[in-house]
Amino acid sequence: MYKNYQEFTKLNLKLDMSRGKPSPEQLDLALPLLKETGIADQIKSNGTDCRNYGIQLGLPEVREFFASLLDTPMNQVVVDGSSSLALMHDVIVFALLYGTPGGLPWRGDKPISFLCPVPGYDRHFSILEAFGIKMINVPLLEDGPDMDIVESLVSSDDSIKGMWCVPKYSNPTGTVYSLEVIKRLASMSAASDFRVFWDDAYHFHHLTEERIAIANILELCQAAGNPDRAIVFASTSKMTFAGSGLAVLASSTTNIDWWQKCVSVRTIGPDKLNQLRHLRFFQNAMSVDSLMDQHRAILKPKFDIVDSIFEQYLGKIDNVSWSRPLGGYFIDLITPPGLAKRTIELAKNAGIILTPAGATFPYGIDPEDKHIRIAPSYPSIDEINLAAQGISLSLLQAMEENNS
Amino acid sequence: MYKNYQEFTKLNLKLDMSRGKPSPEQLDLALPLLKETGIADQIKSNGTDCRNYGIQLGLPEVREFFASLLDTPMNQVVVDGSSSLALMHDVIVFALLYGTPGGLPWRGDKPISFLCPVPGYDRHFSILEAFGIKMINVPLLEDGPDMDIVESLVSSDDSIKGMWCVPKYSNPTGTVYSLEVIKRLASMSAASDFRVFWDDAYHFHHLTEERIAIANILELCQAAGNPDRAIVFASTSKMTFAGSGLAVLASSTTNIDWWQKCVSVRTIGPDKLNQLRHLRFFQNAMSVDSLMDQHRAILKPKFDIVDSIFEQYLGKIDNVSWSRPLGGYFIDLITPPGLAKRTIELAKNAGIILTPAGATFPYGIDPEDKHIRIAPSYPSIDEINLAAQGISLSLLQAMEENNS
Repeated sequence: MYKNYQEFTKLNLKLDMSRGKPSPEQLDLALPLLKETGIADQIKSNGTDCRNYGIQLGLPEVREFFASLLDTPMNQVVVDGSSSLALMHDVIVFALLYGTPGGLPWRGDKPISFLCPVPGYDRHFSILEAFGIKMINVPLLEDGPDMDIVESLVSSDDSIKGMWCVPKYSNPTGTVYSLEVIKRLASMSAASDFRVFWDDAYHFHHLTEERIAIANILELCQAAGNPDRAIVFASTSKMTFAGSGLAVLASSTTNIDWWQKCVSVRTIGPDKLNQLRHLRFFQNAMSVDSLMDQHRAILKPKFDIVDSIFEQYLGKIDNVSWSRPLGGYFIDLITPPGLAKRTIELAKNAGIILTPAGATFPYGIDPEDKHIRIAPSYPSIDEINLAAQGISLSLLQAMEENNS
Repeated sequence: MYKNYQEFTKLNLKLDMSRGKPSPEQLDLALPLLKETGIADQIKSNGTDCRNYGIQLGLPEVREFFASLLDTPMNQVVVDGSSSLALMHDVIVFALLYGTPGGLPWRGDKPISFLCPVPGYDRHFSILEAFGIKMINVPLLEDGPDMDIVESLVSSDDSIKGMWCVPKYSNPTGTVYSLEVIKRLASMSAASDFRVFWDDAYHFHHLTEERIAIANILELCQAAGNPDRAIVFASTSKMTFAGSGLAVLASSTTNIDWWQKCVSVRTIGPDKLNQLRHLRFFQNAMSVDSLMDQHRAILKPKFDIVDSIFEQYLGKIDNVSWSRPLGGYFIDLITPPGLAKRTIELAKNAGIILTPAGATFPYGIDPEDKHIRIAPSYPSIDEINLAAQGISLSLLQAMEENNS
């Protein structure tokens, strides 16, 4: 255990903890997948030659598989490409250029805006910033976004067209949305072309033995008379291979028909061989659970060591806290106001690259400059142990500077 | 050989010749590719774990490989995803929403338009139609688009932002652009954000022993002082697997930087395992040639039989002709004016599905109703033999109806 910041910097560490990347050990878990289409008789699925063009919405049996995992009818599920971020991006592009079903193009005469629960996922915000869509911060509370604020904004302003949600094990806070919050999101009054972007990125990514399940947003929207409100996104990026997984989009049949019409202009179908590989590797829901248990076995000790080191260094410091997530990929370290940026800078000088200060907020601006996103998945336990010490010492150093 | 249309319809054929899909025999040629990443030690490339996130522009050695095949510097080549159509679509989307480098968004107050050499590729036209971009027909001559018309339109109207070109073995005519045409495209005066969409879809897809090479549009644009004018697209869809190949984009470094900036908002990188598979399967330029020779050996007899049957049925008929392409995937059958639609309908009644009449023109309107796109790649030789007879008899029947 290092005692002070100056001593720590002499280690000359080179450690990148900025992104939520799976570790090589996790990627190894999916290696058998690579052999799944290695033989000639494995290229067909229900008579479809998976090597050829077509099947825009994904192989039916792969859609069926994810439909059952996500508890959604198969005709409301699309499997396409390897990046759910790309699907979110493209939904926004299509809404900007074509409009949502029955609606006008979002890119019209009037500026539009999105609600952004904060802190949140930087890549969500980057899409909006790139397209000049105004972002409105909404505080993320213990059980989800502050719904009093959300309802009040959305019901009074029909230029608000969308809202980001990472409803389970939120990036970076680990927040799990409550039934009450999800019900209010589904039933609140909003513009008819308002869309909830439900990024279910960590659906299967539990860090405890309890596999937390949250309410089915699509069902609740349907029940509330807003069937087209939510679009659910998921991917296997952190289940199989981060660059070569499958991405999933689920929504009402109206939205799926709209998606199909839009995406058919773009391609002649997804990579079905990769879908087949995944289907055969996953086999069934039980083996998915067992796979994710193995991921958890690799990830949990990494989260535990951060928690334990933080406890030792920071446990008794006023105004310092951190999340103890039950799933997902991140820990949110909360510094006293005004010290996140300086802490990250000090950590960088000690060889530890963290997610840039403010990245978890729209426009990169954390108004209180107090959130630091810690991504413990990629480095080894020993590296994380050191990094957590370095981050703690950097924060203590920042506090000392601040008090002097 | 069937003698009349009525007799032919009794065969009750069910044959789809509407799309340029590779046949199962062609897809078999790439089967070894599926085994290329089957073992654990094959997942790394220059130290990069290809299973993880990142490497936005494609694996450097895969970019290098295609750079050498396309005779373009490596830093001007991107390898991304499996669909070159998606890359073209996304370039247009990015230009609409962001504008090209230094330019204003194409989606502004003023409508924009594209030049479309006709007949051409229906999916090119679908993208423009979907986004409400006006399409202007330009006749495709023996050696490329009618450049007098192109130059006159482009130099006088800066709302013309783009132009489709399939410069080698054009879809559907098999046209090969001449050096003169390519030089004029590169050097003509046009809006600074005018872009030539150079869909080099059939770069490697020769039907004769001569591997026709055309001028390098990027070099000519550079030499003419218009370095950012052309964007080259290619893919391995008809070299390995139509749904699971690699797509390539090549252009000036300014355009590549712009592409990277735009696409980084969309994803965290392409499927690098598939890139690695392809690299190892392709090996080198010589083995690509040898692979394409095998494709040719499968495809050539199919084109020959269509030509031979057409010759027998239609060779002496006035006002009927067809292309004899030296590469690519299509034959353009030209009927007497006003008879393409009826011929396609009669063929359909005889069980032969052809590309819809007009599909090779913007808005689906062939002004003279005389082009029929024949796609002989997918069916077997025997099926094509029958289909060519059926198409010939359908055309003769249409002519008879017309004369009666």
